[in-house]
Amino acid sequence: MNIFSLIGLIISGVVLFVGLRLSSPDLQIFLDGPSLFIVLGGTFAATSVAFQLNKIGSLFKIFFTQFLKGKTVDPTIVIKDVMKICEAYRNGESLEELVNKAQDPFLKEAMELISDGILETDKAIQILEQRAVKMGALRNDDTKKIKALGKFPPAFGMMGTTIGMIVLLANLGGADAMKKIGPAMGVCLITTLYGVIVANLVVIPIAENLDEISKQMDTKDEIVLEGIKHIISKSNPILVAEELNSFLVPKERLDWKNATA
Amino acid sequence: MNIFSLIGLIISGVVLFVGLRLSSPDLQIFLDGPSLFIVLGGTFAATSVAFQLNKIGSLFKIFFTQFLKGKTVDPTIVIKDVMKICEAYRNGESLEELVNKAQDPFLKEAMELISDGILETDKAIQILEQRAVKMGALRNDDTKKIKALGKFPPAFGMMGTTIGMIVLLANLGGADAMKKIGPAMGVCLITTLYGVIVANLVVIPIAENLDEISKQMDTKDEIVLEGIKHIISKSNPILVAEELNSFLVPKERLDWKNATA
Amino acid sequence: MNIFSLIGLIISGVVLFVGLRLSSPDLQIFLDGPSLFIVLGGTFAATSVAFQLNKIGSLFKIFFTQFLKGKTVDPTIVIKDVMKICEAYRNGESLEELVNKAQDPFLKEAMELISDGILETDKAIQILEQRAVKMGALRNDDTKKIKALGKFPPAFGMMGTTIGMIVLLANLGGADAMKKIGPAMGVCLITTLYGVIVANLVVIPIAENLDEISKQMDTKDEIVLEGIKHIISKSNPILVAEELNSFLVPKERLDWKNATA
Amino acid sequence: MNIFSLIGLIISGVVLFVGLRLSSPDLQIFLDGPSLFIVLGGTFAATSVAFQLNKIGSLFKIFFTQFLKGKTVDPTIVIKDVMKICEAYRNGESLEELVNKAQDPFLKEAMELISDGILETDKAIQILEQRAVKMGALRNDDTKKIKALGKFPPAFGMMGTTIGMIVLLANLGGADAMKKIGPAMGVCLITTLYGVIVANLVVIPIAENLDEISKQMDTKDEIVLEGIKHIISKSNPILVAEELNSFLVPKERLDWKNATA
Amino acid sequence: MNIFSLIGLIISGVVLFVGLRLSSPDLQIFLDGPSLFIVLGGTFAATSVAFQLNKIGSLFKIFFTQFLKGKTVDPTIVIKDVMKICEAYRNGESLEELVNKAQDPFLKEAMELISDGILETDKAIQILEQRAVKMGALRNDDTKKIKALGKFPPAFGMMGTTIGMIVLLANLGGADAMKKIGPAMGVCLITTLYGVIVANLVVIPIAENLDEISKQMDTKDEIVLEGIKHIISKSNPILVAEELNSFLVPKERLDWKNATA
Repeated sequence: MNIFSLIGLIISGVVLFVGLRLSSPDLQIFLDGPSLFIVLGGTFAATSVAFQLNKIGSLFKIFFTQFLKGKTVDPTIVIKDVMKICEAYRNGESLEELVNKAQDPFLKEAMELISDGILETDKAIQILEQRAVKMGALRNDDTKKIKALGKFPPAFGMMGTTIGMIVLLANLGGADAMKKIGPAMGVCLITTLYGVIVANLVVIPIAENLDEISKQMDTKDEIVLEGIKHIISKSNPILVAEELNSFLVPKERLDWKNATA
Repeated sequence: MNIFSLIGLIISGVVLFVGLRLSSPDLQIFLDGPSLFIVLGGTFAATSVAFQLNKIGSLFKIFFTQFLKGKTVDPTIVIKDVMKICEAYRNGESLEELVNKAQDPFLKEAMELISDGILETDKAIQILEQRAVKMGALRNDDTKKIKALGKFPPAFGMMGTTIGMIVLLANLGGADAMKKIGPAMGVCLITTLYGVIVANLVVIPIAENLDEISKQMDTKDEIVLEGIKHIISKSNPILVAEELNSFLVPKERLDWKNATA
Repeated sequence: MNIFSLIGLIISGVVLFVGLRLSSPDLQIFLDGPSLFIVLGGTFAATSVAFQLNKIGSLFKIFFTQFLKGKTVDPTIVIKDVMKICEAYRNGESLEELVNKAQDPFLKEAMELISDGILETDKAIQILEQRAVKMGALRNDDTKKIKALGKFPPAFGMMGTTIGMIVLLANLGGADAMKKIGPAMGVCLITTLYGVIVANLVVIPIAENLDEISKQMDTKDEIVLEGIKHIISKSNPILVAEELNSFLVPKERLDWKNATA
Repeated sequence: MNIFSLIGLIISGVVLFVGLRLSSPDLQIFLDGPSLFIVLGGTFAATSVAFQLNKIGSLFKIFFTQFLKGKTVDPTIVIKDVMKICEAYRNGESLEELVNKAQDPFLKEAMELISDGILETDKAIQILEQRAVKMGALRNDDTKKIKALGKFPPAFGMMGTTIGMIVLLANLGGADAMKKIGPAMGVCLITTLYGVIVANLVVIPIAENLDEISKQMDTKDEIVLEGIKHIISKSNPILVAEELNSFLVPKERLDWKNATA
Repeated sequence: MNIFSLIGLIISGVVLFVGLRLSSPDLQIFLDGPSLFIVLGGTFAATSVAFQLNKIGSLFKIFFTQFLKGKTVDPTIVIKDVMKICEAYRNGESLEELVNKAQDPFLKEAMELISDGILETDKAIQILEQRAVKMGALRNDDTKKIKALGKFPPAFGMMGTTIGMIVLLANLGGADAMKKIGPAMGVCLITTLYGVIVANLVVIPIAENLDEISKQMDTKDEIVLEGIKHIISKSNPILVAEELNSFLVPKERLDWKNATA
């Protein structure tokens, strides 16, 4: 459970509620079913054309699951694991036994592929590098897709407002037109409001967040790849820590002097 | 037939219809011939200047055929075929016989070029790599072109609204001007509406979809290239599966243990 | 003469004319000299600051000449020429005699540089590669410049409308202000209309077209570079055709079996 | 303390104050609590979703500390230090003693890693290069994030104005509607104003500034990396100066003839 | 003195003057001190935050000096100089004597560094290549910065108009409100007009121009680097001309047959 993402969403909700409340004591004037339908329905329809219905499920999965669990990417755990495995492997334990000491799925996959012995070590490492590149590219594509979705809610917000204005103006001409035009125009603008809210409080910030997580995953995968090479060559754990730490900014680095104590 | 793309388009149509219906019981106020002409005609005219008339046909072909058939890109089929061909080739069958076992057109082309024997194997593989790069670049260009078209419908929507406003304002000044201006402005806005709909429910989502398909095709072509090398060197099918699977995310990978059983 | 570009421009004109005619029987309300001056004059002024007056001539040349002649890029002609020259060179004709068989200017330049004998062959090919890269970069720059120009007409259209609104509003306050404001605002909007038309029916589509031509020229130059190497090494024409075809999509490839017959 | 950044902010404040004052003698009409809440609260909420609450602190740190201290990046100091250390090292002082002569943190880190002797020199330099690349990438990411934030204030400004308009129009219809609508609309526009101010006088210019600093840091790190190699190989200080100066434009270069005197 | 840039600016001024004059016989309605202050002051304030006050001077220097002198980049002069120096160096003159024959500052710097003899030739060339890359990157950065500035004038134009509207609307409600609102709104729009003018007739075109000059400088520096290698290896001047010409389009190439005559 990623507590910070949840808090972020709660803050967004509170800011929105307070902002609306400060503007009008009566929140009902901001509610309009058809407007909500046009913005959400339109965005869903555009997404279903753009990404195939069977893929939308996985988009939602990325959207919520990864976003809400994302911040568990902690490269120091990988570094610690690699150090422990190196130590144990130097002390004669077999790779098969050590596979379970790997907490990170990619590190586990890497150790299984090598302890399997089907492929030569060099070939296996090459395949793992290829997989890391491919996984990074796919994560990057997913983020770009969600960013691309950010353009739809404001577009459909504008579409809804245009529809509303056309209807409104078509019915003008009666006696008390000027009296009715005001409130009706207000309703038209609600779709614009929904579009802005969905884009700027939900889709775009989450896409930025996923972009960040995606970069952290890339760094973690680079560390795994470098780490597996150290495991195979039974490197000194201190050298391992020093080298793997290079992938991190100073304050995020593993303090191996204390960590291994 | 790509059922998901079709469903996507149907969803778009339904959302649009319901959205309009919720806004006005009388859908006729959203119909305006000249507005439709300006948005579609303008987009067609700009496209005909930008891409030559003889190429527009192929754009439409990409637009609909590839979009509606696109999702048949299944790299596991290629992996399975390569495994089978490897197996058969190891068992002494000739490449000429095996050409027909290749379902993917690029794999077939590759096997024909090699079984032809006109070119040396190294040269043939180099040529195939060049072709894969070139085909990928061309697919990418096509997608970019269709994305570029997405800017035209809203621009011509705005143009139509501006034209309408000019005509409307030019004819003001009469006695009941205020009565007529409302409905007339409503008509002006219809072009804007058409521009937004064409761009956001049709052109942009389809362009995103083609972008996705184009990337899947690139991955598939990479697998074919890697696969043909394995075929030539008569690799062990299991090693082939393990290596070609690296191009795919875990859940898309071919489960060769069951697949070859 | 590129018939398709011309037809594209004619279609644009017809669509514009019909679109305006459908909106108003009196086309004169769309004509306004000062508006035309602001949009075209402003775009010209911005261009003259951005690209130096002595270069604008060459921009116009690219704009019209290349655009109207551009579609003559046919790489199969180059492939055919390279095949013929290879054949003749294998049969003992000298490069000096064969120079005139090259229809493409870059192929001709390449053959002259090599038959000249001033430079060693390796050096000459290196220089030709450098030239191809440089020419491609320059074409790409020219296209980017013309694309950059596409932002100016709408900006000056908006400028003209703002100017018109300022004048209009400054003169309000008289007795029949409301009567005059309508038609005057209509005139203001004409600059916006001109800006949209110039950008979306002329500048942007032509820039897209040049982008396309520029990419075809790059492909053609790659084929020439590869072809000249084959000529020097007196390759078998069939191998030449097979390899040079790799730069093209299947349906554009030279069908050398019939072509050389 | 970076005096220029502070002056820049003060100039921004003064220009804003004078600009508002010239427009209205009564500055109170530009103050509106709810508007400020919507723009700042919305931007904060979107940021908290996009970057995790625990990271916002570090964003603020970058925002203010680095921005206000940033301009102390002076590569000539590094060059001078490297020259001195080279000189002293040639004269027999040990690296351990010389570590403290390095003022730049990265130069210090580099010298410590090498004088430690845990890693071979080649490996240590490779690790340092990796760290420089990684640090540069992280600085670049931070700048991009802050640039991305620049889109939120205008979006929430627009959201606030839309909210205001909806409320305003919903309450129209009374007797003196036309009298009240003016001032109320004025209040609506204040959110737009706040959005424009926050984006264009604060967020975007600071992001540009950080981008600049980030590039200067990259250059400085390149100089450190090149310098540490010279230190290890005990290069002649004059050669060091000549080579490290290449990373700088002529007028920023260290005038070593006078500097070492 | 770059006559073409000056003419470009004059054309811009004339087009602007005529455009305004055609719209209103009374140009005074386009003059408004506070509007000018907001657009120019705001742009200056944002620039002073973004680039440090002590750097703004150098931005202005690039803006005007380089823009007004820029078009003197003539690569054929460099080619001619390299040819002459090669010829003279082959005939036994020393590099020290020949330094003064180099008109281009970078060619001069290169020759001085080599004739100095402090560094080995290989090292010197490597340093010069590094300098060329670095200078190109810095020119590129400067151009990007000026392009980034182009966003500020329209933003502050919009800010000024929003300020004006807030003031205007706050003061509505009086008896003859409708009479005053028109002219007052006109004044509001003047800031928008100034923003559009400053961006589209000054900042953006000049940035495009500098971009062009920057690319020409890159080409010239590449020619110098290639040329200095030829000088060192005492190449035949004709070979030099043929090779250096490759960096230029055919019609810009040095016609060395006549040039050396």
